[in-house]
Amino acid sequence: MNPVDFNGLDTAIHGPLRLGIMAALQVDGALDFTTLKKRLNTVDGSLNLHLGKLEERNYITSKKAFVGLRPKTTYKITPAGRKALAEYIQSMKNLIKHLEASA
Amino acid sequence: MNPVDFNGLDTAIHGPLRLGIMAALQVDGALDFTTLKKRLNTVDGSLNLHLGKLEERNYITSKKAFVGLRPKTTYKITPAGRKALAEYIQSMKNLIKHLEASA
Repeated sequence: MNPVDFNGLDTAIHGPLRLGIMAALQVDGALDFTTLKKRLNTVDGSLNLHLGKLEERNYITSKKAFVGLRPKTTYKITPAGRKALAEYIQSMKNLIKHLEASA
Repeated sequence: MNPVDFNGLDTAIHGPLRLGIMAALQVDGALDFTTLKKRLNTVDGSLNLHLGKLEERNYITSKKAFVGLRPKTTYKITPAGRKALAEYIQSMKNLIKHLEASA
């Protein structure tokens, strides 16, 4: 077999929670921390960690605001993030095609 | 959005190396440790760990033999492993469909 390049899967996106964040932001546009946390059924620490990693790579941006006295952080996918997600999906589709051809 | 269930992605398979092992074994049938290691461009410790986890779940089986004086371990995907991989692919396809519809 011509090896499928698993290293071609963007590991910055591949983790389930990362993929969840990217997908939710692509589908729904901007989402705040609390909504993301509920949507992805996760906890503060883990969500914070992965949001931070995605922001470091410039795949998402965050914006802090105050709602009354409470801070609220909203996250958005960037054009670079959209591109990375599209490439990830393309790699995954290639892999699936390859696997289905051999199933 | 109706949330995509990321918890539906079988995390026993999702990791890049696990997915690599499962894919290689599905496509090529039985492979020995050294071939897998080269194929997936990884190292002994990491490959051993992930092969062990997949074997614990009964997704693959291993068989030790001797070639001359050297031990050689060969790995095969099980029917349960094939089923799990097929389900993983189906979940990933649903996710991709969802993401593409919103791109």
